[in-house]
Amino acid sequence: MDFDKYCIDRPKHVRLADWKTDDKGKLTKEKAEALMAELQGKLLDLQERLYAENQRSLLVILQARDAGGKDGTIKHVMSGLNPLGVSVVPFKVPNELEAAHDFLWRVHAVAPRKGQVTIFNRSHYEDILVPTVHGLADKEVIDKRYRHVRHFEELLADSGTRILKFYLHISKEEQRQRLQERLDDPEKHWKFNPGDLKERALWDEYTTVYERILSETSSSFAPWYVIPADRKWYRNYLIASVLVQTLESMDLKYPRIAEGIEHITIE
Amino acid sequence: MDFDKYCIDRPKHVRLADWKTDDKGKLTKEKAEALMAELQGKLLDLQERLYAENQRSLLVILQARDAGGKDGTIKHVMSGLNPLGVSVVPFKVPNELEAAHDFLWRVHAVAPRKGQVTIFNRSHYEDILVPTVHGLADKEVIDKRYRHVRHFEELLADSGTRILKFYLHISKEEQRQRLQERLDDPEKHWKFNPGDLKERALWDEYTTVYERILSETSSSFAPWYVIPADRKWYRNYLIASVLVQTLESMDLKYPRIAEGIEHITIE
Repeated sequence: MDFDKYCIDRPKHVRLADWKTDDKGKLTKEKAEALMAELQGKLLDLQERLYAENQRSLLVILQARDAGGKDGTIKHVMSGLNPLGVSVVPFKVPNELEAAHDFLWRVHAVAPRKGQVTIFNRSHYEDILVPTVHGLADKEVIDKRYRHVRHFEELLADSGTRILKFYLHISKEEQRQRLQERLDDPEKHWKFNPGDLKERALWDEYTTVYERILSETSSSFAPWYVIPADRKWYRNYLIASVLVQTLESMDLKYPRIAEGIEHITIE
Repeated sequence: MDFDKYCIDRPKHVRLADWKTDDKGKLTKEKAEALMAELQGKLLDLQERLYAENQRSLLVILQARDAGGKDGTIKHVMSGLNPLGVSVVPFKVPNELEAAHDFLWRVHAVAPRKGQVTIFNRSHYEDILVPTVHGLADKEVIDKRYRHVRHFEELLADSGTRILKFYLHISKEEQRQRLQERLDDPEKHWKFNPGDLKERALWDEYTTVYERILSETSSSFAPWYVIPADRKWYRNYLIASVLVQTLESMDLKYPRIAEGIEHITIE
């Protein structure tokens, strides 16, 4: 299948209304779930090679509106991975120490080390989204952040980090249903944050900022994928596929050791 | 099944020769692997509750000789977990910054946060093992480390961290076979470290230190489990079982949210 149609790998004008939230390719849920088992096997194998090679790394950035499916993606796509080589970094509101530094300081500190897959659950893009929507920073400060983000991602890419950025694209109606579910199911209450309702009221404002982010921070070394995410099974299938395709393209090899090692006998 | 026989939960004299490396209970490999699927389902469910509760944490410490099965345990026991709530911390030879601090400084910095399962792949016990075996520190410095380790673990336990310490107990012959395998299989070359042979020559010295560690640092709040680890399938089964039993005993609950929340309707 061709995943390029979900990919933005250079700056260009993006309007989210042009991107479907409920696409499902030509797949059915059953078919996608069968394919997932195979993808997860490949993913585990590729991850082991990345870990063994210990030269490069993979950074996966997940961005979405509330209830957009970030946690679900991690659970369903990443659970089969070997925790030895994976770490998930959640980004919350900056704490006092973090806020006392430039906005990329805390991000840089948790960039993936060689051999690792690191998943950012939210990311430095929140430091563009929230200040813009809530008017917490001057326009020129925010404008500069777009540049700083591009430069930062280029630095990581030049140092052996493959970067994949996923925007999980859901409809406003889908968000309504998911937030309502969190209220209706006592085992999901803990996921509900009353603040989410205030952000939901700013739906269009967030759309505008996401469009600018997708338009201006897409690059060949740090592409954005706009993932139709109303259907969880299609979202999972797509993301797993892109991960496998990307890792396969890296041509990961078990490292060669000095010659002669195979003649050693252990006593 | 009764796992207590593998558990040391108070200071007492331990001789490793009294502990079998090839025990397999009354199980067969097939039976254990069938039970594992069930255990992993439970583990995932319990982990979600721990994460949702967001009040307590679990620290799993893995110690073993080279090729003792630490990485294999992480891969086979922990791979089913949700990476959102798990982190693996490897401890290598302290770097310059780490060595410029007390030996627990770098350990404390990566203690599990609430809601998390943290796995130490090696740990602060290396700072007792290596200096003792290689004579890198004075006896009185090392003697004090035993006390500091107990105090540190008590601090974590008092702050809501459940601690489980596993010593993966293999025979010298089993280690020989596993190291040889790493040489014989090109895809395993990367796991081979020539330094492992020097450590292997110090087998008895390590035994003596492990015996003192098990004897003096076992406590009700940070018990050691001596896991017969020659058979990988039994090792995995035992560790998964202890994890499930421990998490079940914590009575983890999804948190209750303020009343009235279930009457909200999202628009």
